[in-house]
Amino acid sequence: MSIQFKIDSTAGSARLGKLTTPHGEIETPVFMPVGTLASVKGVPQDVLEELGVQILLGNTYHLYLRPGVETVRKMGGLHGFMSWDRAILTDSGGFQVFSLNELRKVSEEGVTFRSHLDGSSHFFSPESAMAAQIGLGADIIMALDECTEYPAERSRVRDSMEMTLRWAARSKKYFEEHKREVPWSGHAHVGTAALGCPDARSASVSSASEGAGSAAAELRSAGQPGAAVPTQALFGIVQGGMDRELRRESALHTVEIGFPGYAIGGLSVGEPRERTREIIESTLEHLPADKPRYVMGVGTPEEIAEYARMGVDMMDCVLPTRAARHGLLFTSEGKVSIKQARYAQDEGPLDPNCRCRVCSRYSRAYLRHLYASNELLGQVLNTVHNVSYYLDTMRAVRHAIQLGERARFLSERSGPKP
Amino acid sequence: MSIQFKIDSTAGSARLGKLTTPHGEIETPVFMPVGTLASVKGVPQDVLEELGVQILLGNTYHLYLRPGVETVRKMGGLHGFMSWDRAILTDSGGFQVFSLNELRKVSEEGVTFRSHLDGSSHFFSPESAMAAQIGLGADIIMALDECTEYPAERSRVRDSMEMTLRWAARSKKYFEEHKREVPWSGHAHVGTAALGCPDARSASVSSASEGAGSAAAELRSAGQPGAAVPTQALFGIVQGGMDRELRRESALHTVEIGFPGYAIGGLSVGEPRERTREIIESTLEHLPADKPRYVMGVGTPEEIAEYARMGVDMMDCVLPTRAARHGLLFTSEGKVSIKQARYAQDEGPLDPNCRCRVCSRYSRAYLRHLYASNELLGQVLNTVHNVSYYLDTMRAVRHAIQLGERARFLSERSGPKP
Repeated sequence: MSIQFKIDSTAGSARLGKLTTPHGEIETPVFMPVGTLASVKGVPQDVLEELGVQILLGNTYHLYLRPGVETVRKMGGLHGFMSWDRAILTDSGGFQVFSLNELRKVSEEGVTFRSHLDGSSHFFSPESAMAAQIGLGADIIMALDECTEYPAERSRVRDSMEMTLRWAARSKKYFEEHKREVPWSGHAHVGTAALGCPDARSASVSSASEGAGSAAAELRSAGQPGAAVPTQALFGIVQGGMDRELRRESALHTVEIGFPGYAIGGLSVGEPRERTREIIESTLEHLPADKPRYVMGVGTPEEIAEYARMGVDMMDCVLPTRAARHGLLFTSEGKVSIKQARYAQDEGPLDPNCRCRVCSRYSRAYLRHLYASNELLGQVLNTVHNVSYYLDTMRAVRHAIQLGERARFLSERSGPKP
Repeated sequence: MSIQFKIDSTAGSARLGKLTTPHGEIETPVFMPVGTLASVKGVPQDVLEELGVQILLGNTYHLYLRPGVETVRKMGGLHGFMSWDRAILTDSGGFQVFSLNELRKVSEEGVTFRSHLDGSSHFFSPESAMAAQIGLGADIIMALDECTEYPAERSRVRDSMEMTLRWAARSKKYFEEHKREVPWSGHAHVGTAALGCPDARSASVSSASEGAGSAAAELRSAGQPGAAVPTQALFGIVQGGMDRELRRESALHTVEIGFPGYAIGGLSVGEPRERTREIIESTLEHLPADKPRYVMGVGTPEEIAEYARMGVDMMDCVLPTRAARHGLLFTSEGKVSIKQARYAQDEGPLDPNCRCRVCSRYSRAYLRHLYASNELLGQVLNTVHNVSYYLDTMRAVRHAIQLGERARFLSERSGPKP
């Protein structure tokens, strides 16, 4: 037992679903804020909860370097370490290592890279990337992939895509053999509770400080030897560059290997936005409809809404958080660069249509002052708003899918059309 | 009507009091966190409210440079600008300018200084410092003083102290003539509400966006021409260096000028801590018992508790917030330097006896990771804890004063002692 995915309704290609993980249920389509180093920069966990964040993304490459997998594992995995009891997804480290450019070297066996922090040499194989992600203990983890650079020759893209397929099979093999080593695997009641019982959250909070294995031991001694122990879910990643045919091949073979969810990787690497959209659309056709589909590392609010309408269930992006720290804010009236002098005496809220705690309380003038004075609070408040705006965008998309379904239902009830 | 001060009970020299301002009631002894640029660095205002912050300090020098007095005034003063409806105190700018060293020049007329931001030249006189503080609109403002350097010749200290007395008289004169220009002076219901009516907070929140003067106009048209309009309260500052006799003279003459509260300034300028304590103790003797006494810019948790026991009612210090950003945390078990490797896998809370939102949720290991990784959230959470710890310290002091009074009351009721 790792995840369950259920589609409640559809509208065109879009799907409204529920993804149940060992750490709670997620309404899809979902946007996942990025918490690179086990923190969404500047935002306390209780504020993330209040904003309605259902699942966070952590970066394996960064967490592997700091604080290190072993430290996180000893604290019960990322959930215990960062005191976050909702779902978490970790990337494979492939994209991060890819972005190191001169500091990496890829072979069939894996990728050697140098730390951006101290230049020390490290090695990720599909197997060691799995071991790291099992130690970090996210609910959803990703197979190690090679993210092909853009632009690239077709033969280079094919070779890279085919190696990613071999890495996917190796990732799956290692994962299946080691998935019970997840830090919380002993805490059977965590998973079974989240996958059915209403007090999942409190149960797993209280279990965080217990010795690993004690809950499972209890469960076994209670005479339920066959009870399903929750594990992580491993997703495969489709590569194939900007080539629709290679994407199709990659998708088909990744599905052959078989995963509970599929990601489309290798996008947002410098290609035109229209190409991103085209690759997503054509690749989605080759992914099974009953499994969650995750597009990695996109995009603007308009883009994530569009991709959701095309049938994407999960997305993540650093844009809302990174832009916030640079004073770029997303609002219902368009982008606002809060550093501009025109806001210096603007008493209005950042976004008059937003009900987040920032827009409810502070003026553009105050936010502009905080930014201009390089005050920490500016980065905090800007991030809270942008994350809120992204989550609201996805809420609106989910609502629209639901309404679309209802509208069709109502029109069907009103009798056959001529 | 500006402030009211009432002493509810005493224990030894310590006093438990209530200071009523146009923006709410303050229990004394009180610690005032420093919000230099209209923000307690990294902490949103709702968190400050939750922590029980009753009054914040803003720095006139910094706010005068950024965002400028006129911007703040137009937004309804600091309360409207930063969306903080509880009490605020601004310093005179004297101490900040004093710390500029080579960038300032003092004369009888005032002090010329260069901005630390761009080197531009500025001038504070007692009158212009008052004008700035009236525009900023804090509830309590401070007379312009010269903060004498340490060590200094006695004649230099005397001259400086005497000039501060003349500046105090000029400050008071200007303030009395202009105090009705405070940005919220028109909002009569703000002040009268806070000084008696229970819905003070909501009244002043809603008034923040109204045109200045409209509420007062309403009040006048309602046939209450004599209704007291709330104003700021101007405190005098005692100087005199580390010389008890000069401090006595300064106190006596400052009291002669007459203020609703008195501060002891010119401390924490490099003198030994025992000297600080001695000067505070000897100066308190010469300050009226029925007025609030404020020691500026002190100290550690132990020191603020001790000064409160000596009869000090108000204190401020950058120590809890600045130390937090450098990973130095105050706990019931002593100081913790969270950067230390010994905390890397420490699952315990920062302070097992603290119930703040940081200690309730996060481990030392997580706080250490955030600090070591230079994550924004580390500075945020550390600051929340340290401010909480300072406020808890003062809560405990107030509780002890109350218990001391009750204990005496109970022992008196049990009959005369032999």
